Amino acid sequence: MKISKLSKNISLKRELESGNEEQLKTVRQVLADVRENGDQAVRKYTEMWDGIVLSDLRVTEEEINEALQHFDPQLKQDLEEAANNIRNYHEAQKRNGYTLPLTDGSYLAQRIVPLDSVGLYVPGGSAAYPSSVLMNVIPAQVAGVKRIVITSPCGKDGKLPPAVLVSANILGVNEIYKIGGAQAIAALAYGTESIAPVDKITGPGNIFVALAKREVFGEVAIDMIAGPSEICIIADDSAYPDEIAADLLSQAEHDKQACAILITTSEKLAQAVSEQVENQLKQLPREEIARASIENFGHIYIAENMDQAVEAVNTLAPEHLEIVTENAEKVSEGIRHAGAIFIGRYSSEPVGDYFAGPNHVLPTNSTARFASGLNVDDFIKKTNIVYYTEQTWKENVQKIARLARMEGLEAHARAVESRGWKKGEN
Amino acid sequence: MKISKLSKNISLKRELESGNEEQLKTVRQVLADVRENGDQAVRKYTEMWDGIVLSDLRVTEEEINEALQHFDPQLKQDLEEAANNIRNYHEAQKRNGYTLPLTDGSYLAQRIVPLDSVGLYVPGGSAAYPSSVLMNVIPAQVAGVKRIVITSPCGKDGKLPPAVLVSANILGVNEIYKIGGAQAIAALAYGTESIAPVDKITGPGNIFVALAKREVFGEVAIDMIAGPSEICIIADDSAYPDEIAADLLSQAEHDKQACAILITTSEKLAQAVSEQVENQLKQLPREEIARASIENFGHIYIAENMDQAVEAVNTLAPEHLEIVTENAEKVSEGIRHAGAIFIGRYSSEPVGDYFAGPNHVLPTNSTARFASGLNVDDFIKKTNIVYYTEQTWKENVQKIARLARMEGLEAHARAVESRGWKKGEN
Repeated sequence: MKISKLSKNISLKRELESGNEEQLKTVRQVLADVRENGDQAVRKYTEMWDGIVLSDLRVTEEEINEALQHFDPQLKQDLEEAANNIRNYHEAQKRNGYTLPLTDGSYLAQRIVPLDSVGLYVPGGSAAYPSSVLMNVIPAQVAGVKRIVITSPCGKDGKLPPAVLVSANILGVNEIYKIGGAQAIAALAYGTESIAPVDKITGPGNIFVALAKREVFGEVAIDMIAGPSEICIIADDSAYPDEIAADLLSQAEHDKQACAILITTSEKLAQAVSEQVENQLKQLPREEIARASIENFGHIYIAENMDQAVEAVNTLAPEHLEIVTENAEKVSEGIRHAGAIFIGRYSSEPVGDYFAGPNHVLPTNSTARFASGLNVDDFIKKTNIVYYTEQTWKENVQKIARLARMEGLEAHARAVESRGWKKGEN
Repeated sequence: MKISKLSKNISLKRELESGNEEQLKTVRQVLADVRENGDQAVRKYTEMWDGIVLSDLRVTEEEINEALQHFDPQLKQDLEEAANNIRNYHEAQKRNGYTLPLTDGSYLAQRIVPLDSVGLYVPGGSAAYPSSVLMNVIPAQVAGVKRIVITSPCGKDGKLPPAVLVSANILGVNEIYKIGGAQAIAALAYGTESIAPVDKITGPGNIFVALAKREVFGEVAIDMIAGPSEICIIADDSAYPDEIAADLLSQAEHDKQACAILITTSEKLAQAVSEQVENQLKQLPREEIARASIENFGHIYIAENMDQAVEAVNTLAPEHLEIVTENAEKVSEGIRHAGAIFIGRYSSEPVGDYFAGPNHVLPTNSTARFASGLNVDDFIKKTNIVYYTEQTWKENVQKIARLARMEGLEAHARAVESRGWKKGEN
């Protein structure tokens, strides 16, 4: 890995693929077609792109039972324990609204209401992502969303990976569709004969899915568009180089555009980690991906002291931050911008990807400056409530009318003035 | 106003102007130019479009003092009281993070951190909008945002409206710029020699401002893109027609595309409101705007009963809902989708626009199905924290490694396994 002195000009930002004109044109056409022709269009594109003629779009009970029957019981138990941990962490995010009583029985309030329905897109392809199912569905369930739908492109055999079906089953979700791509996003946004529309769509996908989500935004809500993964590690002399290297590589194996950065006060550690990365790379099944990531976006920076390291992290605002130093908790207190923080040697980042409880859907590409990981608030909305009695109205009507007239909005002033007193009721 | 029976096919949705290709091209050019050339480009476009050669981009202390000197003390007091009410309502939205202790000293936590800096765009033109200053700045202040910037296009005299400067002064905000349009959004997003960049931009503007906000989204956060205002009123025989008409017109006067809808169980009320609207329209200074809104988007629906009225509102998901009925609070309990609810005869909607306390920046165009009004959460973000001790790691390392391998991510498994035990430390 490249090693250099830490300077002020560090950045995580990469030029991310935002789709070309032709891809966008295709996506718009698919969206319009599904909006117009429903299931028929969904089937057409599924046949065209995935090469599959589907009888049912929806996964049947038999398919779920089959997946359950052949699934490794140990893995099922692991998934159940992960689900419990994730649920516990997110339960603490539940909120009630509030009521502020004013004089005379008047009050103001905020009411919290879950979304009616959400759709989760689970990417297909070679791998199965049961952890995505847990991380997206559980906060929606904790929020109180009644209807939760999963959609994912099926394999050539017309089936979804058992791990996805088993994860959904553990959570009690059984409305699952076997479709992917822009046509799946269109079906969730607009609805078809067999799929009722949802209010929000979450979950990652390929460039067509990302473009489709951007296009339907406004019609429905969407989660953030996630970029390639990032890990930043702050470490000092107390860290073990092989562990730091392994953690850097855990994110590098995700994507050739993933970014792994070590910031350390120890030149010795820097050198040792660099060597370890090279050694471990050679033994990785996904060596090609991880190597491309490390070569293009991996970097080790030598900081003069811990304060400089912390300030650099606040500039980067990384998705994942590990702090493997003496007094790691104390160091963490200086961090203002990071999606998730893993404190101490035993909090290896994959602990959070799968199991600990906090969400693994996190802001990338420095957006942790202003964005949060997926959480229960993403599945609720708030309604403001005003209840004024006659007395409270009477005390304030003139002030309100004056403010309205200051803005040149006479009808506003007249509306608030229109109550009883002008009719001689009082 | 048109009167018809309530049916299932009601909708608030209007085709909103999303900008044409040429406008988008202009905006992209302005953004690129300001990013490249900073203040010089900002000045160029301000001269080109606003016809003003600015010496300072920033409002001076003298200008603020001058505005304060000549400002009506009664109005200043009204603004101060409104600011207090708004602050009280939003204070209740402040949150702390949480810590969940696990066994053995391990813990999970969520940390709440305010954004570092936000910029508020205040539209210019004929009117001044001090209420927008209060509604955007106060939630950011309550959240704990340290740097709050206001920008607004100045008049031909090179000055901002006194009401805007006085409102900002009441809130203690003194970083105010006299620029508007796409160049102002670019300056806030990218920064210039004289304006440091911000992390989030809020506030409404014309089509160029809206397009610029969409373009910089991702680089910085933005609030929702607000559409024309909407009011929906549920009323029964107990309501006074002149009051209902006045409230409908209070939103109709905002915009020719504003939408005013009455849903009532009383045919008598429907008829009387329709007549009242016509009578009151003739006496309004903004008659032309309000009349266009009422003619194009105004509607009175007769509902068979209150349940049907409530269900219709949940379909519409209006920005503002008034409930002027017997047992209005009870009726309000059935509402799942509305930006703000005004309960009872004395809670005329302008009460909330200016004074009561809840935010007046609310989701329009049926997005109240999934979106909330501006609130303190819009100015904070959440960081997930994992702290595992050796013991907790030891208990869970195998489960985590199995889950990682199930997803085909070997480097994840090796990272979490890399700790002490493989080195014979334990």
